[in-house]
Amino acid sequence: MEINFSEFLILGVISMLRVIICGYSGGVGKILRECVAKDSECELVAGVSRSLETGTCDGNVKLFKSFDNCDVEADAIIDFSHPDNLDSMLKYVLKTKTPVVIATTGFTAEQDAAIEDVSKEVPVLLSHNTSVGVNVLIELVKQAAKLLDFDIEIVEKHHNRKEDAPSGTSKMLISAIQEVLPDVKGLFGRSGRSCKRQSGDIGVSSVRGGNIVSDHDVLFCGDSEVVTLAHHAQSNAIFAEGAIFAAKKILDKENGLYDMKDIL
Amino acid sequence: MEINFSEFLILGVISMLRVIICGYSGGVGKILRECVAKDSECELVAGVSRSLETGTCDGNVKLFKSFDNCDVEADAIIDFSHPDNLDSMLKYVLKTKTPVVIATTGFTAEQDAAIEDVSKEVPVLLSHNTSVGVNVLIELVKQAAKLLDFDIEIVEKHHNRKEDAPSGTSKMLISAIQEVLPDVKGLFGRSGRSCKRQSGDIGVSSVRGGNIVSDHDVLFCGDSEVVTLAHHAQSNAIFAEGAIFAAKKILDKENGLYDMKDIL
Amino acid sequence: MEINFSEFLILGVISMLRVIICGYSGGVGKILRECVAKDSECELVAGVSRSLETGTCDGNVKLFKSFDNCDVEADAIIDFSHPDNLDSMLKYVLKTKTPVVIATTGFTAEQDAAIEDVSKEVPVLLSHNTSVGVNVLIELVKQAAKLLDFDIEIVEKHHNRKEDAPSGTSKMLISAIQEVLPDVKGLFGRSGRSCKRQSGDIGVSSVRGGNIVSDHDVLFCGDSEVVTLAHHAQSNAIFAEGAIFAAKKILDKENGLYDMKDIL
Amino acid sequence: MEINFSEFLILGVISMLRVIICGYSGGVGKILRECVAKDSECELVAGVSRSLETGTCDGNVKLFKSFDNCDVEADAIIDFSHPDNLDSMLKYVLKTKTPVVIATTGFTAEQDAAIEDVSKEVPVLLSHNTSVGVNVLIELVKQAAKLLDFDIEIVEKHHNRKEDAPSGTSKMLISAIQEVLPDVKGLFGRSGRSCKRQSGDIGVSSVRGGNIVSDHDVLFCGDSEVVTLAHHAQSNAIFAEGAIFAAKKILDKENGLYDMKDIL
Repeated sequence: MEINFSEFLILGVISMLRVIICGYSGGVGKILRECVAKDSECELVAGVSRSLETGTCDGNVKLFKSFDNCDVEADAIIDFSHPDNLDSMLKYVLKTKTPVVIATTGFTAEQDAAIEDVSKEVPVLLSHNTSVGVNVLIELVKQAAKLLDFDIEIVEKHHNRKEDAPSGTSKMLISAIQEVLPDVKGLFGRSGRSCKRQSGDIGVSSVRGGNIVSDHDVLFCGDSEVVTLAHHAQSNAIFAEGAIFAAKKILDKENGLYDMKDIL
Repeated sequence: MEINFSEFLILGVISMLRVIICGYSGGVGKILRECVAKDSECELVAGVSRSLETGTCDGNVKLFKSFDNCDVEADAIIDFSHPDNLDSMLKYVLKTKTPVVIATTGFTAEQDAAIEDVSKEVPVLLSHNTSVGVNVLIELVKQAAKLLDFDIEIVEKHHNRKEDAPSGTSKMLISAIQEVLPDVKGLFGRSGRSCKRQSGDIGVSSVRGGNIVSDHDVLFCGDSEVVTLAHHAQSNAIFAEGAIFAAKKILDKENGLYDMKDIL
Repeated sequence: MEINFSEFLILGVISMLRVIICGYSGGVGKILRECVAKDSECELVAGVSRSLETGTCDGNVKLFKSFDNCDVEADAIIDFSHPDNLDSMLKYVLKTKTPVVIATTGFTAEQDAAIEDVSKEVPVLLSHNTSVGVNVLIELVKQAAKLLDFDIEIVEKHHNRKEDAPSGTSKMLISAIQEVLPDVKGLFGRSGRSCKRQSGDIGVSSVRGGNIVSDHDVLFCGDSEVVTLAHHAQSNAIFAEGAIFAAKKILDKENGLYDMKDIL
Repeated sequence: MEINFSEFLILGVISMLRVIICGYSGGVGKILRECVAKDSECELVAGVSRSLETGTCDGNVKLFKSFDNCDVEADAIIDFSHPDNLDSMLKYVLKTKTPVVIATTGFTAEQDAAIEDVSKEVPVLLSHNTSVGVNVLIELVKQAAKLLDFDIEIVEKHHNRKEDAPSGTSKMLISAIQEVLPDVKGLFGRSGRSCKRQSGDIGVSSVRGGNIVSDHDVLFCGDSEVVTLAHHAQSNAIFAEGAIFAAKKILDKENGLYDMKDIL
């Protein structure tokens, strides 16, 4: 069924990916609405959010408090919401065999297992960072770590309201490098009279200021040259755009649990 | 024979790669001498250059006007010289089965064919840019061009004495991208009242100033994010360092003609 | 009167700058509304735009087709509109002695003269680029050009829909440098086999891709060092934010015609 | 006398600044020799270093173990040596009225006082960082801190052998900013679950890798824009070049104690 849709989309026979947004009233949910609206291949058919009343409408979009009451048919679900929604969403997914992109974080081990179970019957993509650019950066960084025997350092920049340092994406980058170079480890907050770099350290520097959205530079420093792989986010729309990209890509995938790197 | 040397080198039984520099008196030749001297695994045994007198010495290094008179045994030759030297160098290579890294440019088609012939009997690496960082950049750029459907632009920076624009490395980058995206083409010197970017253009911007050695930034510009892959050269030593790295790597390769990407 | 208001604002006696937006329905006008709404010291009291109907309201904001009918009192006007509005706006300004920030472009010489006339009776700030950051960049670039006898180059980056190159801001930067170094001149679109940098050239490189808002790097390249002064715009809000900043600053200025640099 | 020389230099009547290098055998001393050799306006007449034997020569350059035996006349002294040399050098300076650029560090309070005393009779420039670019950066950063009410952050990058973090130049930058904004303070090594940026913090991030010479970026982060002032050193020659520049500039200064900013 999905395969047909995807082929139809490619063939131009049908031209719309019908999308349900779970987390319709949240921060990324609002951006998702705008991104779906701008995308000529997408059509928003329903929104789900705990703060909504079932049965109301936002233009042509039907709104639901929970998936329990959702009677709308769609080609894909995009979920940026709360772990509490997972249960009813997975029931809907199983019943309707609708592929789903899950970008919600904070699941329990049981919830992770439930997602994996469902993925045996329908394509599911689970990611903590749906930005296409960030996921490509991670792949390129792994490749560079394989090819270059250089010192690796990370500089990340975010707005002045961010509570923690380093960023989650920095940690994802370090994990990715460790797949290739198991002995490296992150070093956060280098300072002091005697803090010479040790071989294997990946120093992570955290800049905080103004409204910087999210910048990550990974430096590979050699004897006489520096290779830098960098990602610059202009807005949080990257997460919404990447999730829509992912929704299109998993349509014709076989059932299974996917990560962003599987659909790049 | 080479294989044994390489294994010995790895095993620590012997610890020296004996190197002949062809182009001993040239710009990169001088840097090569310093890099070999600093490298605990390398030993310079001979220098060849048209400006030298055969039979003289520079410390322990025997000097030759041409390979015709060279009676020194080595584990590898590194050649940054002139096409005129090729003939006698290849004779020496064939006779002694010494692996060779050729970074000289400007060969005729006949000379290219001669190099290929010799490579059937001894490992030969031929490259117009032996910098490890630049060659890794090229591989990463190809990978990114495959994964990202973004606008690609290049900014390159060089010193104020450079005659031409864009740089040769920019052209190498464009060729590499065209392997993946055959329809893109370089656009040099964008300016004017009506010069809107056309899809498929790879704009190359050439900055010239001071003593900048060589910088290349490749930008992948998406809807809300920019991925940048950049190489910054601190000195021309990158070519010498990369050639020495290559000399070590081809030792245990089978006979054949190699490129830098084959040994990364 | 304005002086008192400003002092009151500083003293905290009153806390609101009452603003009229001319160009209320335009692109920057919409951003201005958001910026004024976020600013705890500002209150939007009226909007003027040719596309509006006089007498209607947008929440507490009174709307007018033209200043001819505007009967609202304000502490400042911010104008991002069209030269056609100038005549009626200046009549209102003169009658009510309301300070005005004019960021509209495309005035005739007569209109420029009319603005100057009005500025004898009320503080007027006229600027083609109200971004605080860009104006500070221009001042710093002038200072650096005085202090450093280095090669100067500019790299500017914009989205892929921009028709022309180089950017207007690049031209403003070159003019500013020429105040200090009268013999330099801009060089746009460097490329070719023989395009060696001439002393006094300011090469401007124009990158176009994706949705880049506006980036300007000014490089000062010396014998062994590079000083770079850079401005990165995250959104077009910089023009609205700078205009609000300017509106607050001209309140207690004497009558006269001001530029952004006068209020930095 | 100095004034005449300087005028002569400008007029082209004489064309050489005769220089004595104190610290002739040290790291910067060696670079100074090359820089003086390349400079058509300079001539090296003598070298002083504890490791040298008085009375020997290096080409045309007379060598001395100490200034006690130095009988060479010069137009300027450049000192990158050790506090132990100060006493005899100042005696020579006083006796011959030779202007001096002192870039040695680690003086005692008594030695600082002695330098100040001597500067009443001859022009003396004392600086811990003679790079022209770094000193211009410091001036521009002060200017920007005055003009922009933005969050300030610093990123500095050095080679992997540097023992301490942050760099001395970062501390100079913070001191310069504190002249304008007395309430800001440096924050070194930001990391942790709860390390939100506090207003007034100047976070300094220290990157260490490869052979990076010395990079300093000062970021001014506003609501929707970032202004970055950056210095990139290509080699340690910047200190030698700046000292030569300073030597030329203090020639026609009145007696007194100068800093690099006085001669920019």
